[in-house]
Amino acid sequence: MPTERVREHAGPGATTVAAHRRRLRADRARQLADLLRHQVLTGGFPDGTLPHEAALGPDYRASRNTVRQALDLLRAEGLVERLPGVGTVVVAQKYPHGLDRLMGLAETLREHGQVTNEVRTVGPVAAPTPVADRLRIAPGADVLYIERLRRLDGLPLSLDLTYIPLDLGTALLGADLENTDVFRLLEAVAGQPLGHAEITLEAVNSDAHSAAVLQAPRGAAVLMLERLTHLADGRPVDLEFIRFRGDRITMSGRLRRAL
Amino acid sequence: MPTERVREHAGPGATTVAAHRRRLRADRARQLADLLRHQVLTGGFPDGTLPHEAALGPDYRASRNTVRQALDLLRAEGLVERLPGVGTVVVAQKYPHGLDRLMGLAETLREHGQVTNEVRTVGPVAAPTPVADRLRIAPGADVLYIERLRRLDGLPLSLDLTYIPLDLGTALLGADLENTDVFRLLEAVAGQPLGHAEITLEAVNSDAHSAAVLQAPRGAAVLMLERLTHLADGRPVDLEFIRFRGDRITMSGRLRRAL
Repeated sequence: MPTERVREHAGPGATTVAAHRRRLRADRARQLADLLRHQVLTGGFPDGTLPHEAALGPDYRASRNTVRQALDLLRAEGLVERLPGVGTVVVAQKYPHGLDRLMGLAETLREHGQVTNEVRTVGPVAAPTPVADRLRIAPGADVLYIERLRRLDGLPLSLDLTYIPLDLGTALLGADLENTDVFRLLEAVAGQPLGHAEITLEAVNSDAHSAAVLQAPRGAAVLMLERLTHLADGRPVDLEFIRFRGDRITMSGRLRRAL
Repeated sequence: MPTERVREHAGPGATTVAAHRRRLRADRARQLADLLRHQVLTGGFPDGTLPHEAALGPDYRASRNTVRQALDLLRAEGLVERLPGVGTVVVAQKYPHGLDRLMGLAETLREHGQVTNEVRTVGPVAAPTPVADRLRIAPGADVLYIERLRRLDGLPLSLDLTYIPLDLGTALLGADLENTDVFRLLEAVAGQPLGHAEITLEAVNSDAHSAAVLQAPRGAAVLMLERLTHLADGRPVDLEFIRFRGDRITMSGRLRRAL
């Protein structure tokens, strides 16, 4: 953590010495919390228990107070909990979703557990113009609409809204949507692999209804993924709007400087 | 939007006809809100004004009530505002950050405006063990720590915490950190381009202090990016923890099915 050698700029918000000190304390707690978050998420505490506050300090070059404040931040995020007589334990697991390859949720999380889908809605609807445009079908033509609450070992992970052109979608109506990724079904029906997808990610505070469906607190941060998936031949066949619970999913990948 | 042809499953939460109807209304509002969000974010309403509610309905195959509820959701997210006598206008712009190529913020947003950095902290610190491990230096060795509030045309976009090995970091102490991406400075100092970065994205509710720094409401969803950047020769030289305001940044990219 920064020491006296560091130039810390008070900024317009810190007009008094006391306010400046409060800001520095909060800044240091955030710095430490970010380092601890990484360890928590990557299995850096294999037995699920964090070292005692007195032991964390030296490793992280932080004071006891900073350690306490940082643990408070992680507790507020729901990542750790303090258990009397035990210490601070990891209570939330975030599952990694890859940004390097186009994969369905069950494929991605195979090693972490079983993905099941509660199908909330399924059936043909007339495509709204923006959906029709992106799927390159006529406005008002039927698409298959599917709404699923997706769980890993029973725990809600995401709420997925899916639009599929009806020539492919019809075959999905009788499929085992509860236990199978739409990606796999689409490849079987189309007789060719998927090719690529354009994705957009956002962080959004969930509205009351979405939060209730995901069994998360109102306003909980969700990772919102919009994805338009194409078959190998380039045809767009799957438009999805996915709300991942922010406390259960991370997205990881590798970026290169040169293309 | 789903019609009577669609199988909508009441689910365990909807035990009465009234509750079921409420759920369907909320589901339809979310469906429409997601479609409208895409249009808002991609410039689908070029003059910044949404069509009148009565006109939106037919295009999106939604009832007037659903349109109203969907606009309420987007208003709660801070994307649109209702102006008396004008209608519903787009009030927030989200800037696209690429997931396809490793770029600094100023490089990425060049066409959108000027990125300036308020340097909150800069100086050498003894590296905490997890930082040292990832930057492949000795624990306790000095690293340059930089904390910046980054703005686009004056608007806060992100709070960035950065750790750089001191052999490269020293040269950055006198550099123009307020107007230059760290990526560009690192390439100049190292005499070689950056190579790749491993990234992890999460959606997190901001703590009170981070929210205040970003001038966002407490609990506002932030897109949290952790990024370890390597030089072309493979050496890790830049560990960053970045909190993007969720209402101002999206991340976009293209995924392929086959690697």
